Amino acid sequence: MTTQMAREIGEQPAAVSRTLEALLPLRGELASLAARRSQVLFVARGSSDNAAVYGRYLLEAHSGMSAALAAPSIATHYRRERDLSNTLVVSLSQSGETVEIVATQDWAKACGAATVAVTNDAHSRLAAGADLPFVTQAGRELAVPATKSYTAQLAALAVLATALAPEPEQLDAELHRVPQEIARQLDDRAGIEEAVAALGRSDSILVTGRGLVLGTALELALKLEETCLRPVRGMSYADLKHGPIAVVGEGLVAVLVAASGGPLLGAMTELAADLANRAATVVGFGGDEGFRAACDVAVRGPELVEAVSPLALIVAPQLTVEALARRLGLDPDAPRGLSKVTQTDRSPTPTRG
Amino acid sequence: MTTQMAREIGEQPAAVSRTLEALLPLRGELASLAARRSQVLFVARGSSDNAAVYGRYLLEAHSGMSAALAAPSIATHYRRERDLSNTLVVSLSQSGETVEIVATQDWAKACGAATVAVTNDAHSRLAAGADLPFVTQAGRELAVPATKSYTAQLAALAVLATALAPEPEQLDAELHRVPQEIARQLDDRAGIEEAVAALGRSDSILVTGRGLVLGTALELALKLEETCLRPVRGMSYADLKHGPIAVVGEGLVAVLVAASGGPLLGAMTELAADLANRAATVVGFGGDEGFRAACDVAVRGPELVEAVSPLALIVAPQLTVEALARRLGLDPDAPRGLSKVTQTDRSPTPTRG
Repeated sequence: MTTQMAREIGEQPAAVSRTLEALLPLRGELASLAARRSQVLFVARGSSDNAAVYGRYLLEAHSGMSAALAAPSIATHYRRERDLSNTLVVSLSQSGETVEIVATQDWAKACGAATVAVTNDAHSRLAAGADLPFVTQAGRELAVPATKSYTAQLAALAVLATALAPEPEQLDAELHRVPQEIARQLDDRAGIEEAVAALGRSDSILVTGRGLVLGTALELALKLEETCLRPVRGMSYADLKHGPIAVVGEGLVAVLVAASGGPLLGAMTELAADLANRAATVVGFGGDEGFRAACDVAVRGPELVEAVSPLALIVAPQLTVEALARRLGLDPDAPRGLSKVTQTDRSPTPTRG
Repeated sequence: MTTQMAREIGEQPAAVSRTLEALLPLRGELASLAARRSQVLFVARGSSDNAAVYGRYLLEAHSGMSAALAAPSIATHYRRERDLSNTLVVSLSQSGETVEIVATQDWAKACGAATVAVTNDAHSRLAAGADLPFVTQAGRELAVPATKSYTAQLAALAVLATALAPEPEQLDAELHRVPQEIARQLDDRAGIEEAVAALGRSDSILVTGRGLVLGTALELALKLEETCLRPVRGMSYADLKHGPIAVVGEGLVAVLVAASGGPLLGAMTELAADLANRAATVVGFGGDEGFRAACDVAVRGPELVEAVSPLALIVAPQLTVEALARRLGLDPDAPRGLSKVTQTDRSPTPTRG
């Protein structure tokens, strides 16, 4: 039986195509909204937060903007006002109904920010409250774990970051190749069964990545945790090297995520060899031939420049998570204890206004 | 036998006193340096990064500034320049010799930032390269796990944040009470033995906190991992609620860190009850009477306003980590695989210039 999650993973080429088609024409409007604003602040939680990590690195590494992730409690609990007149606030929520995110967007507006809402629901409160709704076109998502709504968010963030770059169209050719690269990831499943077997054998899993693909690593860690009920630590390469690497040893499965090129691939390949020397089982997603050779189990990633590779690099991890959940006797469509619209704090059910 | 780590934990009242005495007179100079700069960017790794998380919340919640943690790879690997003329960059490194941090400070300066270096070594390259060295007075630290150098960093960040607040002296009375509150934490060890026992029984540990004390939770998680070689997940309350809470169940020890007051204490108390309902063993540090009642094991924290409480709230967790390492037959002074000056990437040994 095919799960809903598997079907939705398969719908990602179309979800990304439709999202690019809908949002690329809004680049001019977005650039006007952001004019004379020197920084971007992302507001998000959960897998949307992992998407925001990609947006942050893309803005800083590619577009030359300052970008950061907001601490929503400053708005929702400390209720501290500040001057955001130089800031573009980008809020992400697939449902557009997470109360904490809607409240933080309202706070940002009151503090003088220009606001963009990246959401999959044009009729949500988040979309209604934004200066510019940036509505993804993933279609309705039924499985609880976000897959196509997540990649559609990444597509939206790529459009947003390029709109603010000195040459907005520089990455367009690569962006338009993303749907076919996702399709190729869906077809070529070499290595996935071995990755599932390695992850299924261990109770001690660590996922790491760096730079533009750090968000991909964090998203894989979150999905393993919430869908496969595995306690997983997701962390940056640098944080790993500054302490927790002391814990690496036999029995640990270390999952490394890497782009096929870029300035961090060499360090990720060295890390794979280092972890293997510490007797961990190393599972690699992406990278190049040298990276894959340094891993015990390797799954080939997309052939895309690093800047847009996260849009397709997540596909093999998603397939792995879906298959692992089934192997563990779990229902990937409805993980224990989670619902589709997540709320951080107890609060009254939002009503559509 | 007393370990070096235990001795250095005991030296914290003096380390914080000396640091406050040395740095409070620099508030005017710092405010001048930051004039007309609208945001603060922290550059740090490891336990210094956990200190920066406190600095970030204190600046945003108390001083009304925008603050964020930098992604050093933007400087060191992507080598992307950007306009930091509106930014105060605060770099933190206890040794002042972490190459990645020194390189990122140099990059920030070249991008137009004003720079402050928080370091325990006045002769370090980080101090030498900064517009304003903010030298902590922890004294020489010999144990590998940072304790007194960490609390001295927190003291430096409290001075820095208050210098940029509308009323710089508003927290001074509480700040001056910190050394005696640390001393009280050192004297009253009720609950610590029970916390050590609970943590020693479990291979599955999660540490969480929120807002101003999130950094304290992350620091405890890092210390447990690097000193006790326990795989530990440290995460924010909100990230926990957005997915990983699904994994909580019997056998898990959930460690919660809370201030004795403030807008987040209620949510932390509810979380303690929620986690206990999911059959986790809940260990609480800090909080008020209601919070402690909701925990299975509770260690009383300092009586300080939330804004400065992290300076003393970390003491009981440090004592717990030191005792747990000994109980596990490990040497807390020299954890496996770590050295005192941590480098993220392989690079030539820095030479003093």
